[in-house]
Amino acid sequence: MNVIHSIEEMQKKILRLKSSGNKIGFVPTMGYLHEGHKALMKQARKENDVLVLSIFVNPLQFGPGEDLEAYPRDFEHDRMVAKEEGADFIFYPTVQEMYPKHSSVKVSVEDRTDVLCGKSRPGHFDGVATVLTKLFHLIMPDRVYLGLKDAQQVAVVDGLIKDFNFPIELVPVPTVRELDGLAKSSRNVNLLSIERDQAKELYQSLLYAKEEIEQGERDPEKVIDMVKAFIEMRCDAKIDYVEIYSYPELKPLNIIAGKVILALAVKFSKARLIDNLILEIV
Amino acid sequence: MNVIHSIEEMQKKILRLKSSGNKIGFVPTMGYLHEGHKALMKQARKENDVLVLSIFVNPLQFGPGEDLEAYPRDFEHDRMVAKEEGADFIFYPTVQEMYPKHSSVKVSVEDRTDVLCGKSRPGHFDGVATVLTKLFHLIMPDRVYLGLKDAQQVAVVDGLIKDFNFPIELVPVPTVRELDGLAKSSRNVNLLSIERDQAKELYQSLLYAKEEIEQGERDPEKVIDMVKAFIEMRCDAKIDYVEIYSYPELKPLNIIAGKVILALAVKFSKARLIDNLILEIV
Repeated sequence: MNVIHSIEEMQKKILRLKSSGNKIGFVPTMGYLHEGHKALMKQARKENDVLVLSIFVNPLQFGPGEDLEAYPRDFEHDRMVAKEEGADFIFYPTVQEMYPKHSSVKVSVEDRTDVLCGKSRPGHFDGVATVLTKLFHLIMPDRVYLGLKDAQQVAVVDGLIKDFNFPIELVPVPTVRELDGLAKSSRNVNLLSIERDQAKELYQSLLYAKEEIEQGERDPEKVIDMVKAFIEMRCDAKIDYVEIYSYPELKPLNIIAGKVILALAVKFSKARLIDNLILEIV
Repeated sequence: MNVIHSIEEMQKKILRLKSSGNKIGFVPTMGYLHEGHKALMKQARKENDVLVLSIFVNPLQFGPGEDLEAYPRDFEHDRMVAKEEGADFIFYPTVQEMYPKHSSVKVSVEDRTDVLCGKSRPGHFDGVATVLTKLFHLIMPDRVYLGLKDAQQVAVVDGLIKDFNFPIELVPVPTVRELDGLAKSSRNVNLLSIERDQAKELYQSLLYAKEEIEQGERDPEKVIDMVKAFIEMRCDAKIDYVEIYSYPELKPLNIIAGKVILALAVKFSKARLIDNLILEIV
């Protein structure tokens, strides 16, 4: 496994690999790798000749109030995980290498951002789309792997790839869960033990809604109210949002139909958790 | 020579050509090909295995007052010119093919746009950068050829390629001129015959300024005033602008030093002409 810091070296290596017909699988991350990242790497490893992992805490996607400096980092741990999962390259540039000066161009995301978590993070997805545009030009992946836990990010990147005609296949990877259904997250350690027990109900609330929809309920407002009531009855937590949209367009719906996302965010005392289900109504 | 209308077909053909090691030269145009385009194609033909010309009148780069519908088109003429110049492919998509729906993303150009012709065309370079981002992903050129007549466009695309790390070399091609020095342009036919004679003085004014700078003049304001006086004495025309900036950054200068552009725009009765010189002061 090769750790590469330089853009020039990365681009040279990739051009050589591509011109001899290798398929590149790419897992972009901000490091501090956990089970979710491992699932992405495992699938990318299986489906491609070359596996590239990037580790870059991207300042562009942090807002003024969001603590860029405090973002957790542990490169030695990440290097071991990447090696275990069979990565060929870690691309690990400095901020100076990625943004040597004020950039003359940026990607603006004009859709899919004013809902779910995007509402409270203006400019966040511009930063995500801009850094991915740069990384896609450096890594030239045939396939890019993103976790569905962050379903809005997957939707935005789906638009980025299709609307800019990147020659890349987006592979969304299902959320990795604990045995009781709780979506894995580095934030789960911040739950009190009574909260940890209650937190399993978030996924249960989504499964309950799924069943109601499968039984014929088509009114988004009713489903949202059911989910809220389900959570409020079982968790000492503050609901941030429960929302239903078309997927991946993230447009509001009058009637539940087609491919839809049911997503929620809930605040426990020291941890804000998110989860979602994507359903196809036929 | 192959005329291709479909994005999917174009991308497939290019992927095959690239994976067997071919170098792609790309000349993006809005059609209605003239001598300037021929010079781009000639150079691209010499330096690459495959020559791709695109013809696409890009609605995104036209402002509300600018007449998109009236933009001149003559595909049969263009096809003949492209064939003569040895193009392998013309990529000739419809607007519907390039923009099937409202795009969820766009490229914003944040620098180099509030000067020269950009001042009076807000959003123009966002449109240029967005369509080129799409075309670069479809054509995957090793080299892209742009005319220096449109020096601001070259500067913006230079920023686009470097700041987004496109694996592309930008090749700026010198302006093609008439025997008396007038920069070739499809707009020259709109000059009255007395204006056509006077119009040669635009290039002369740039050469005069070059000589003054080479003799030691370093004050941008003084050079600009000399050029204005030179033109006003010799042409019945209204000066739109005469400006000097660093190149390709297009930043204002207190002292003429390094690589600089001296650019002008002048309005005759029925034609607005532009010209420029790029100088390297050592």
